[in-house]
Amino acid sequence: MLTAEQNDELTQVEAGTPMGEVLRRYWYPVAFTRELAEFPVKRVELLGEFFALWRSPSGRYGIMPEPCPHRKASMAYGVVEADGLRCPYHGWVFNPDGECVEQPAERDNTQFQKRVTAQAGRVEELGGLIWAYVGPMPAPELPRFDTYVMEGFRDIGWADLPCNYVQIMENAVDPHHVEFLHGRYFEFVGRHEGFTAPASFGKKHVKVGFDAFEWGIIKRRVVEGASEEDDDWKVGHPLVFPYNMRVGGGGIHQMQIRVPINRTTTRFMLYTVHSPDGYEHVDQPVIPDYELPVLDAHGRHVTNYVEGQDIMAWVTQGAITDRTTEHLGRSDIGVAMLRKMFREQMDRVAKGLDPLGTIREKHERIDLPCEKDKFHAGAQFALDFCDMGSSRFSPMLDTIKKIHISAADKVASEKAAAAQ
Amino acid sequence: MLTAEQNDELTQVEAGTPMGEVLRRYWYPVAFTRELAEFPVKRVELLGEFFALWRSPSGRYGIMPEPCPHRKASMAYGVVEADGLRCPYHGWVFNPDGECVEQPAERDNTQFQKRVTAQAGRVEELGGLIWAYVGPMPAPELPRFDTYVMEGFRDIGWADLPCNYVQIMENAVDPHHVEFLHGRYFEFVGRHEGFTAPASFGKKHVKVGFDAFEWGIIKRRVVEGASEEDDDWKVGHPLVFPYNMRVGGGGIHQMQIRVPINRTTTRFMLYTVHSPDGYEHVDQPVIPDYELPVLDAHGRHVTNYVEGQDIMAWVTQGAITDRTTEHLGRSDIGVAMLRKMFREQMDRVAKGLDPLGTIREKHERIDLPCEKDKFHAGAQFALDFCDMGSSRFSPMLDTIKKIHISAADKVASEKAAAAQ
Amino acid sequence: MLTAEQNDELTQVEAGTPMGEVLRRYWYPVAFTRELAEFPVKRVELLGEFFALWRSPSGRYGIMPEPCPHRKASMAYGVVEADGLRCPYHGWVFNPDGECVEQPAERDNTQFQKRVTAQAGRVEELGGLIWAYVGPMPAPELPRFDTYVMEGFRDIGWADLPCNYVQIMENAVDPHHVEFLHGRYFEFVGRHEGFTAPASFGKKHVKVGFDAFEWGIIKRRVVEGASEEDDDWKVGHPLVFPYNMRVGGGGIHQMQIRVPINRTTTRFMLYTVHSPDGYEHVDQPVIPDYELPVLDAHGRHVTNYVEGQDIMAWVTQGAITDRTTEHLGRSDIGVAMLRKMFREQMDRVAKGLDPLGTIREKHERIDLPCEKDKFHAGAQFALDFCDMGSSRFSPMLDTIKKIHISAADKVASEKAAAAQ
Repeated sequence: MLTAEQNDELTQVEAGTPMGEVLRRYWYPVAFTRELAEFPVKRVELLGEFFALWRSPSGRYGIMPEPCPHRKASMAYGVVEADGLRCPYHGWVFNPDGECVEQPAERDNTQFQKRVTAQAGRVEELGGLIWAYVGPMPAPELPRFDTYVMEGFRDIGWADLPCNYVQIMENAVDPHHVEFLHGRYFEFVGRHEGFTAPASFGKKHVKVGFDAFEWGIIKRRVVEGASEEDDDWKVGHPLVFPYNMRVGGGGIHQMQIRVPINRTTTRFMLYTVHSPDGYEHVDQPVIPDYELPVLDAHGRHVTNYVEGQDIMAWVTQGAITDRTTEHLGRSDIGVAMLRKMFREQMDRVAKGLDPLGTIREKHERIDLPCEKDKFHAGAQFALDFCDMGSSRFSPMLDTIKKIHISAADKVASEKAAAAQ
Repeated sequence: MLTAEQNDELTQVEAGTPMGEVLRRYWYPVAFTRELAEFPVKRVELLGEFFALWRSPSGRYGIMPEPCPHRKASMAYGVVEADGLRCPYHGWVFNPDGECVEQPAERDNTQFQKRVTAQAGRVEELGGLIWAYVGPMPAPELPRFDTYVMEGFRDIGWADLPCNYVQIMENAVDPHHVEFLHGRYFEFVGRHEGFTAPASFGKKHVKVGFDAFEWGIIKRRVVEGASEEDDDWKVGHPLVFPYNMRVGGGGIHQMQIRVPINRTTTRFMLYTVHSPDGYEHVDQPVIPDYELPVLDAHGRHVTNYVEGQDIMAWVTQGAITDRTTEHLGRSDIGVAMLRKMFREQMDRVAKGLDPLGTIREKHERIDLPCEKDKFHAGAQFALDFCDMGSSRFSPMLDTIKKIHISAADKVASEKAAAAQ
Repeated sequence: MLTAEQNDELTQVEAGTPMGEVLRRYWYPVAFTRELAEFPVKRVELLGEFFALWRSPSGRYGIMPEPCPHRKASMAYGVVEADGLRCPYHGWVFNPDGECVEQPAERDNTQFQKRVTAQAGRVEELGGLIWAYVGPMPAPELPRFDTYVMEGFRDIGWADLPCNYVQIMENAVDPHHVEFLHGRYFEFVGRHEGFTAPASFGKKHVKVGFDAFEWGIIKRRVVEGASEEDDDWKVGHPLVFPYNMRVGGGGIHQMQIRVPINRTTTRFMLYTVHSPDGYEHVDQPVIPDYELPVLDAHGRHVTNYVEGQDIMAWVTQGAITDRTTEHLGRSDIGVAMLRKMFREQMDRVAKGLDPLGTIREKHERIDLPCEKDKFHAGAQFALDFCDMGSSRFSPMLDTIKKIHISAADKVASEKAAAAQ
């Protein structure tokens, strides 16, 4: 249970607030690469602020606050030029560093021009996403997590959710919910809607564990019928501080991304890579993205798929869940640990230190720990994932299934050949 | 004219406010019986609070606040089980009394389990409606008013209106409005839309009267051409405190229900029983409900039917009408009387007494006074009611008309036979 | 740059505020004449207040605050009668002067009746528009500006914009924006949407000038290739204080009207008269009106026409643009001049004087200065106006083009005949 003040502090995202300043030390995906290829400038919201994100004809990216410093017209309607973004209203030009490099109607007033600057951020492209950093300079490196650089077939599901990101992150250190939300509740929904819910999620949790590590918190579990020798405990999977969770199994690798758009809106993204043993390369000039269903026509949550159940639980907790009247039990130990971690990073940033999970070294790839044999479910996991998870809404569903089936066939026939 | 403070006090519905506490001493219809038969748990709003309303497989009903006491996920997405409602998120179970009877991930902490309770209410089914009481225990009896238990053919029209319920209740002690809103204005609308408005509503009011009684206020009128010997005066019809009005005539019996959903939303329901002399029983396994039109495609009120005119008058008074600048006249005496009655019940409840119209004795049926020959209009009243009132939007309109016609035929032929 | 207090004062429209009191000294168009012909009473919002606007069967107009003084039901649903507007709820009648002339249910209480008055305004019809004055009496004259009374073919485009009117008016004294918003940005949009933007707008501004005059501010410009002998400088065109701009050229005469509906909503109207040399009278029993597109299906501004670009610039400045962080340059001199003019009129009104541009003499027609050869573009201006301006959305586009072509033909053949 938190006080109202503690709950406020934990959930703030705005500049100048302790958590807002922590959050401004990280890179966030703010657009799909294909979007700026289609039209070179876009309005984006991040951490409660609006920005103009752009890509010049030569491929340079930039991001600056949306209002032009001159008279506040939107730079998101700017004219993208070789050297910068030109305000549509009176033609002022800002370069990627936020310097005003042209004020055409002002003629020769270089003094005035120099006084005007926009607080530009940094932009990079990685894995089909455009990433932005809008905090203090110098910017840390964009972490090249495994999912964004590994070989495999990709798609990206997403939805904008009307709730604060912290309650979504608390869910990432809450293994017990799987047993009930994706087990018992799934079964209840299936009974009423006429389908059979997957059995693997409902397994009883015998033991759970949490370990802080350099990128966040590793979460472990032993489900009924499994042991501490199984992947779910030995490897586990991590909450990647402060806004991601890495999951996977059965040849599927996924980053669950929860971008704090503003205090009460979170962009939820499922960045998925299908890369089973035996995967043969499929070309993807553009990575497909698709919107996840959240509410049905009656305004009720769509809960006949795994992530739809999560979304329901997160969103119905309220725009900012009331932690002043909650009742945390022993099973919420991961939640308590995460809140402490948030608190510690506020302290670090207040002291001028880099918070957890910022990286300043150039690097090729960061591998995150993640179990391969999930819920001790074997190959069934990939099947359930496709049919009972968000992938059922992917335009790529057929291709994805074929990839898993033909990879399994290949592995099987190789094994058979080896056995002869 | 009220002060701003008086207007606030009169219109509040929230827990802890004087009127909110009065309102929490009554039962309210919160769903149609058919709804929980279709799906066993529903989110409902009442008196500014959200609740989960549920029905177990064995037919037990329950209601509790929507947020789970654990971590605030919605119990309205709960798993309905034999003994209670299970939270979808982590599986805590609450029985109909609000006791937490299971915390599966907490294992054996019975101390913790006992500390967690939900403020459950009481639920009963009557007349095709599910009724809830969410105030202090012990709950009074659900009043079995005549409309809910009498023989007859039923339907229920409804609309959620964006205004406070008090201005709707003031309309219930305001006989003069009939002459203008349903008389002169109806005629004006008909002239512009090309129909003939019913003549019976426009009759001049010669005299009006009001009497407090055990269930609220009886309203009486004498219209031009009638006398104090007529039903409209001798019997009248009542405002049933604090949120109903009983009306009828010509073999029609209706309860007009105005449930305070929150301070500025009122669920308006027309619970209608067609039961003319000569009525022959028609089976109704399910009572049909239908939504009333409020606004047209241009955002203007639909005013070509009686209750649409009332809705326009109520809603255009504002979300909470400004009583600090009103000009009450002699004709508003009923309004003043009602406000005094509200005030008196606040005092009673503050003293720990039951307010007007709560009943603690078991009973079979409560008959309310209601004129049979309305507006001195005879049989024409039922016809106008069907064609010019909300029933024109009922899916049962044809059946209803046939019921009235065949009942009238039966009575006529019986009379003829008797006269022979 | 303004302080927050100055920005507040400048942008207020409400009664009792300094600018709200200035604005209440002018007439505003509040409906199209055809609207009250179609239905005789309409709800209108003006300067942050709602009114009932009506037209009696005999052609008398009236305007009064929307809430009935009795019990606040909407007079915009009133019954229009010969002598006034009757409240739909209880039948009180108010005459055009706002006097209560009937309280039918109150019988003979003339004292009470006299105490009740509505603050009625004045209404006149001119040029296909219904104009209202809702300020202190006596009302000034409705100014009969040239566009409303001249011979020509008319249409009226309009849109309700979610921003304060002052930032729209600042645009009217901002010649430089044309070069960028309608030049460079238009070209950028055309490149991406596949059309060729008109060249005339992109001409470099060599010189601009501003002169206060009896109706507001005359704006002048010299564009590259032109001189001070050209219309753009010698004549210019005016901001008509406080909410209009008069423009035109190539036989087109237009009043750009920006009615402050409330503090953050402005009704933008393009009142256009096509009256080229050689124009032959076309009968117009009803002046057509049409809505301008503002946003597309994705919520982005429609910017492929001149006024759509203006709308984008105005609206994206924010509901009330933040003038506390702007950076005004030398090129914003007109903006500064306008703010000073607003400030001076607040002082005049505070002293009980009529503000700029109110007129108390009866008059037939007020001609406003307006260049005829716009942007030194000759006949091309009318063509661009039809194809690249708001007229492309007019239901009258074909007729308008024919008018300009046949007038030009007529002038040409007359010239040819004269030359023979």
